[in-house]
Amino acid sequence: MRGLTHTIGAGLSTLALAAILSISSAAVDDQQNEPMSINAESVRMLSYDWPILKVGTGSYEAGPTGVTVFQFDKKVLVAADVRGGGPGTVNAPYMDLGYNYAELDTVVFAGGSWYGLEAVTAVATALKDDGVRDGNVFTEDVNIAMSVGSIIFDFGTRRLNEIYPDKRLAQAAFRAAKTGTFPLGAYGAGRFAKSGGFFGCNAFSGQGGAFKQVGDLKVAAFVIANPYGVITDRDGKVAACYTSDKWPDGEVKTSKLMQGFPESRETGTAAVEETASAKNTTVSLIVVNQKMDPADLKRLAVQVHTSMGRGIQPFATQFDGDVLYAVSTGELEKPAFWSPDLGVIASEVMWDALLASVPEQPAAATPNPDQKYNASALKGFAGDYEFSRFASLNISTKDGKLYATASGERTVFGIAHKEATELVPVSAREFMVPGRYPLTFHFEEDGSLMLNPGHWQQHGTRK
Amino acid sequence: MRGLTHTIGAGLSTLALAAILSISSAAVDDQQNEPMSINAESVRMLSYDWPILKVGTGSYEAGPTGVTVFQFDKKVLVAADVRGGGPGTVNAPYMDLGYNYAELDTVVFAGGSWYGLEAVTAVATALKDDGVRDGNVFTEDVNIAMSVGSIIFDFGTRRLNEIYPDKRLAQAAFRAAKTGTFPLGAYGAGRFAKSGGFFGCNAFSGQGGAFKQVGDLKVAAFVIANPYGVITDRDGKVAACYTSDKWPDGEVKTSKLMQGFPESRETGTAAVEETASAKNTTVSLIVVNQKMDPADLKRLAVQVHTSMGRGIQPFATQFDGDVLYAVSTGELEKPAFWSPDLGVIASEVMWDALLASVPEQPAAATPNPDQKYNASALKGFAGDYEFSRFASLNISTKDGKLYATASGERTVFGIAHKEATELVPVSAREFMVPGRYPLTFHFEEDGSLMLNPGHWQQHGTRK
Amino acid sequence: MRGLTHTIGAGLSTLALAAILSISSAAVDDQQNEPMSINAESVRMLSYDWPILKVGTGSYEAGPTGVTVFQFDKKVLVAADVRGGGPGTVNAPYMDLGYNYAELDTVVFAGGSWYGLEAVTAVATALKDDGVRDGNVFTEDVNIAMSVGSIIFDFGTRRLNEIYPDKRLAQAAFRAAKTGTFPLGAYGAGRFAKSGGFFGCNAFSGQGGAFKQVGDLKVAAFVIANPYGVITDRDGKVAACYTSDKWPDGEVKTSKLMQGFPESRETGTAAVEETASAKNTTVSLIVVNQKMDPADLKRLAVQVHTSMGRGIQPFATQFDGDVLYAVSTGELEKPAFWSPDLGVIASEVMWDALLASVPEQPAAATPNPDQKYNASALKGFAGDYEFSRFASLNISTKDGKLYATASGERTVFGIAHKEATELVPVSAREFMVPGRYPLTFHFEEDGSLMLNPGHWQQHGTRK
Amino acid sequence: MRGLTHTIGAGLSTLALAAILSISSAAVDDQQNEPMSINAESVRMLSYDWPILKVGTGSYEAGPTGVTVFQFDKKVLVAADVRGGGPGTVNAPYMDLGYNYAELDTVVFAGGSWYGLEAVTAVATALKDDGVRDGNVFTEDVNIAMSVGSIIFDFGTRRLNEIYPDKRLAQAAFRAAKTGTFPLGAYGAGRFAKSGGFFGCNAFSGQGGAFKQVGDLKVAAFVIANPYGVITDRDGKVAACYTSDKWPDGEVKTSKLMQGFPESRETGTAAVEETASAKNTTVSLIVVNQKMDPADLKRLAVQVHTSMGRGIQPFATQFDGDVLYAVSTGELEKPAFWSPDLGVIASEVMWDALLASVPEQPAAATPNPDQKYNASALKGFAGDYEFSRFASLNISTKDGKLYATASGERTVFGIAHKEATELVPVSAREFMVPGRYPLTFHFEEDGSLMLNPGHWQQHGTRK
Repeated sequence: MRGLTHTIGAGLSTLALAAILSISSAAVDDQQNEPMSINAESVRMLSYDWPILKVGTGSYEAGPTGVTVFQFDKKVLVAADVRGGGPGTVNAPYMDLGYNYAELDTVVFAGGSWYGLEAVTAVATALKDDGVRDGNVFTEDVNIAMSVGSIIFDFGTRRLNEIYPDKRLAQAAFRAAKTGTFPLGAYGAGRFAKSGGFFGCNAFSGQGGAFKQVGDLKVAAFVIANPYGVITDRDGKVAACYTSDKWPDGEVKTSKLMQGFPESRETGTAAVEETASAKNTTVSLIVVNQKMDPADLKRLAVQVHTSMGRGIQPFATQFDGDVLYAVSTGELEKPAFWSPDLGVIASEVMWDALLASVPEQPAAATPNPDQKYNASALKGFAGDYEFSRFASLNISTKDGKLYATASGERTVFGIAHKEATELVPVSAREFMVPGRYPLTFHFEEDGSLMLNPGHWQQHGTRK
Repeated sequence: MRGLTHTIGAGLSTLALAAILSISSAAVDDQQNEPMSINAESVRMLSYDWPILKVGTGSYEAGPTGVTVFQFDKKVLVAADVRGGGPGTVNAPYMDLGYNYAELDTVVFAGGSWYGLEAVTAVATALKDDGVRDGNVFTEDVNIAMSVGSIIFDFGTRRLNEIYPDKRLAQAAFRAAKTGTFPLGAYGAGRFAKSGGFFGCNAFSGQGGAFKQVGDLKVAAFVIANPYGVITDRDGKVAACYTSDKWPDGEVKTSKLMQGFPESRETGTAAVEETASAKNTTVSLIVVNQKMDPADLKRLAVQVHTSMGRGIQPFATQFDGDVLYAVSTGELEKPAFWSPDLGVIASEVMWDALLASVPEQPAAATPNPDQKYNASALKGFAGDYEFSRFASLNISTKDGKLYATASGERTVFGIAHKEATELVPVSAREFMVPGRYPLTFHFEEDGSLMLNPGHWQQHGTRK
Repeated sequence: MRGLTHTIGAGLSTLALAAILSISSAAVDDQQNEPMSINAESVRMLSYDWPILKVGTGSYEAGPTGVTVFQFDKKVLVAADVRGGGPGTVNAPYMDLGYNYAELDTVVFAGGSWYGLEAVTAVATALKDDGVRDGNVFTEDVNIAMSVGSIIFDFGTRRLNEIYPDKRLAQAAFRAAKTGTFPLGAYGAGRFAKSGGFFGCNAFSGQGGAFKQVGDLKVAAFVIANPYGVITDRDGKVAACYTSDKWPDGEVKTSKLMQGFPESRETGTAAVEETASAKNTTVSLIVVNQKMDPADLKRLAVQVHTSMGRGIQPFATQFDGDVLYAVSTGELEKPAFWSPDLGVIASEVMWDALLASVPEQPAAATPNPDQKYNASALKGFAGDYEFSRFASLNISTKDGKLYATASGERTVFGIAHKEATELVPVSAREFMVPGRYPLTFHFEEDGSLMLNPGHWQQHGTRK
Repeated sequence: MRGLTHTIGAGLSTLALAAILSISSAAVDDQQNEPMSINAESVRMLSYDWPILKVGTGSYEAGPTGVTVFQFDKKVLVAADVRGGGPGTVNAPYMDLGYNYAELDTVVFAGGSWYGLEAVTAVATALKDDGVRDGNVFTEDVNIAMSVGSIIFDFGTRRLNEIYPDKRLAQAAFRAAKTGTFPLGAYGAGRFAKSGGFFGCNAFSGQGGAFKQVGDLKVAAFVIANPYGVITDRDGKVAACYTSDKWPDGEVKTSKLMQGFPESRETGTAAVEETASAKNTTVSLIVVNQKMDPADLKRLAVQVHTSMGRGIQPFATQFDGDVLYAVSTGELEKPAFWSPDLGVIASEVMWDALLASVPEQPAAATPNPDQKYNASALKGFAGDYEFSRFASLNISTKDGKLYATASGERTVFGIAHKEATELVPVSAREFMVPGRYPLTFHFEEDGSLMLNPGHWQQHGTRK
């Protein structure tokens, strides 16, 4: 604290009446006390050998939602390619100025739609607060931290709260960044990603990564895959989808869905609802160690980003906010490949990363018609459960059956306000609603209600 | 807090080993306890009659540095024009997509260079935290908060610390936003703005605003004037400058400086140093109530921004980061003026705003050759004074005179490391260094050292 | 002719029925036989010493309209800054890719609105046809000709035909390009430029150029000044204007017009008409010999283009199509100035060029009340005169006076269709219409009618 | 030299000091007398029912090279998406201004690299010359012709001359435009397109088109497919390729080539040479009848263009100049589909168009070891054959065999300068060079030499 009290006082005649206020935050939503999960490990971890490149991830499991921070241990050159119809970015115009000058420190991806951009700016200030960078521009190398990044939309019907990756979470993830491993699946910024909403797939998605070395060339690709389109493998098959029962059996070929559109999109009620909230976004990062000039790096960004239209179909729609960042660390002074060749190699590493993003889809609960309940047990489940200030469920019993009705501002995974939805027995404390998308109700011992218990669970507290 | 403790525990078999960590911030610079000055009043206040438009300002006086938040009480249409060579922006590409859809909530300007972008994103999350906006995209009107904004460079040689406008300050300023008045001069984001570095003027600058009503048309302009160029009035005169003693007497005409360049730039030592740190930026906002479509609003942004090249010379240099935001509130459904006419009216309001940004320049202290000190008094001033972790001064005495030497990492307002600078007596506790730029030393009763006491003072604590 | 006849015939089984047609051009407007004026000399010529830079100009005097070709004797680096609301460009996106590779051959400016873009592309093909460039990309240096350029709007009410600078004219001007001189005023692409329509000035304008050497640095600026705004000198005075008689006497200060808007725009009938056709454009070229990288060259373009907002007010409106091209010849390997300094020098050279563009305004004819005509003389003038397929005048007599009425599709310099305009005697064969804008009728000996005889005359043939 | 001497005439007495020069065109390449092939019919013709949309094609068969003109019978709205690293465009920045105003008349695609842009501008002037449009801006609807378009690179090693589609050819094609049919394959602008150079495929390519109606929605797609990447069908197979004999037998899967890169690119000598000249470009046009606003139309352009990364791999490389134009005719006032859905439909129509572009590849000549020649016959073939000013072959005999050597500035389809290439007998007047790419020599009765007789033949005249 440097003399602030001196700013108010005698002798400062030119100073107008300055009101030093103690502002009381009147925040309706306050997530400052949410526990943070930092560098959680996935059963699938990418290993890579590139000391300069560090990654930190963080999540609020109560969302769940998260952030992924890529930090470079020296200033690197960056370019970006913005293609989606709803992008979220920080300092994008600067990157387009084409200065041939390594300035980038970090690339930050986050959930939380535009609110998650706080994570991007917070990593810049952490770099300053920690003394890694400052505001010095006298030295030959400008030392101001440059943090860029983008976000995905992970609100809407997919979860029942709007917790977002904030300054606190982002700085914690940044400070935990380390080199060598990267968790694949629903971690970090991809914590509540989904894919395939365009065809009603609504598959759980996540973050992917891949690494390849060709001679001296190193290429790493990372992607937060949250596309409106379906993720597609190199054989043309949809990588993850809750398929419609109106679709033909067997493997689903993306080309059939696309070519057969609009007939191919057969959707149930929940699908239509999800479609209506069709906000998505895939954000990605390609890193090469080959020294490149700004124009070439931009070409790499364009070529790789375009190539992603194979693995995501459709891609770059109005309801996506796709942004790709391309980084050249410049460690490999002598060019190994020229632009289109490097682009092809990088595009394939990116496709590998994309496919690696797909988590194991949670299995639906199995209805058990033999499960019997006594009336008091059912009564014990009845009541009001609150998931957030706008999402609540009323559980009621009638004729020995359990019913759910949305009682808050919004509907809950297809549970409507007016018409009660019958819950199908699974086990002593578990019920489900059949349909295209798994929806499981687990009444906890502590009186709370867990929807879809597991990695993407939503927790309601009894009122 | 919604059930986070449940995310770690038995039965969550699909959850990988998640390390819930308590991160200890190892921040070197921590400004979380700095007092905030909110809505400080200037002796010059702009009054305007436009209820939908609210303004809040905040500053850390210890910087000093600050933030200015413009909030609209309904969603409005926005366009941006990025022209400087070092811009800082949030969501600029989105604004260029040209959707004919009112989405903007706030425009945030801040000091702190790129670190100040945290202020822009923090206002978005405040809008969410406070329940003004959420992540709902099911309703007809998308309800996600949209906060855009830009920053100015106010580090470098101009102040001795690198405090920046952060989330805490920005949210406080946002929450204090009110309509009707706007402080003119060195307040808010313009708290430590400067102008005219290109010609060595180094004048203190600030934030300006102006408002005009023509029939039903309302136009408001706001500007954080921190340009590398000199601010110029409609008669062509430089509005504020510490002129070189090599310049001709009398009024300084900008056209003479510009046309006479490079000869016209006569600078002293400190000026050269400042020039070396020539990072600036002017950010501005033009608001009209006339309903406009996206293309027209963009044209307005371009025309007004271009017109600012009259009042700031040179403008849009590589060392500026100029960005103009144009907002149409759409309250006036029937167009009052077509594009170029509206642009001319708005350009003149912007010039008025620019001229209103110039604060009264602090007067230099007057040397007093008759001032005598006894040895013990001088000794009492000697010592080491720390202004921040990288700026310190050593004060020493020799032969009845006081000398200053930079003892930290950086030089201090032209005080160098190796060669001691003699301090000229002013009064019992005050000294100065003559030269083009005022530099005053005031030894406080409490043992600290105040440089340039007054609105832009820098406070050093004795070690 | 390489074997074309072989493409039709037996044995070409894979070739489908190819119809080789003799197309008869059904062109309504055919200017292939218009005389060309090449490298016409102005009374004011810019001299410059820069052998690598050659200029050729051409015009169809029947328009009048023309083209200006800037040719570099080696490949040079180029950047562009597009700012106006109605630009015409060739290959602008390519220039923004930021390749650090000298590729440019020529910059071409032309009248004729978008039709004049034919001139830009025609110079590229002339470079190929003449063997200067080809399509070879095997050599290290790509040898494809790169010609960029832009156009001004010089149709509308300002002239009575729509002749445009075409391939024929552009290639002739290109082939006549030479170094050392440049005609100032209404020549080349500026042959029928106008300025100041925004305030009803409607001054004749032209092309300007300026050259400056500072040490080893060479800077040349060229501009086709056809702005909606008024051209303004460094004292703030309007450089050329047919002022309104409602304006105060004496010098017209641009700042007064701008600040006083909308009241300051007092216009007569013709002015309103011209305003309605408010299509303009200022295109410009800045050339430096200092070697620059693409990002710096783009910054130079932005800074100089922005600075033109001083000399043209308003500038970059929706009704302009302003484009500035910046070229670095790279002859001066060692940088003489850094970016903002170079920008200031170049901006002043550009202002010089702009002021040099203003031609001497033609004096209005003086009414002579004593001039008498006998009836047969007046009868001899009566008749129908055709200026183009859409502009004709009917001259009639009544009570010893001469009257004009528009008899074609369009009005003629304020002469309307329904209400006859009385012509005021000037001399035996000359008449005029008083008003803000000079309009002179000269009945030629050969029976034709020349409007505004002189440099901008319009020639009507008797039907 | 085309009548230039006619430009000087008597009677221009009122003309200011103008130097009317007699310019002698020193054109090395003059194609003004080349026969034009207009609206040649392919064995595969696309039929479509959309009266407002007219197409004209033209070619110089001596190239061969050509132009394709799309004309709309009323002003329509247009957007463009520029993605390749070497685009050629006219008026691209204007399209990005986002005016909600139908202004487009024609989209022109041409061969000839940047020289072919003359075709784009020439169609605009044809619209004016023919009286369809003029320079009138007084009427409510601006009537200036707007012609945009792009070009492909079809020079280099693929043909032995550099004839390009010029004003004459473009205006003839424009004037022959008609509705209802479109020739598929190597016609119009796709006359000498190639594909797959990245993997050494060097397949002949062409122009494609497709049309689909879904309810009231009409979608048409057109593409000039000249990509560096390989064209790929919906099963993932390469659509056309001269495969390397080092590749595995059977169908070539693009995903195998891409994933296997760099090992998968096995190329012979000629392939390397072609690779070195890797200049390509795919230009495309999507037309919908649904009324769209500018932002939506731009989104459609982005989505469809991105989707083309499936059918062309790699796509949007530095050596391509890909540009897609999107047009909304606005005939269907009520939106049939929203943006992403419309984008998927359009993307599939575009893929259909792309696949329709592939022509039947010419079969290689079959060596005939039994073919005998007497010495005088061989002697009769020997001599120098000129294909253009930079491409010539020397045919010589030795030991009863025929040899070819490049004798001009450039090599000829892999025939080098120093080492003579042996020609393998095929028939009495025909020889070939075995290898990955078919190369056939046919000695014509008239003494000339036809290389690769057929649709893409190159004709050499005996010197």
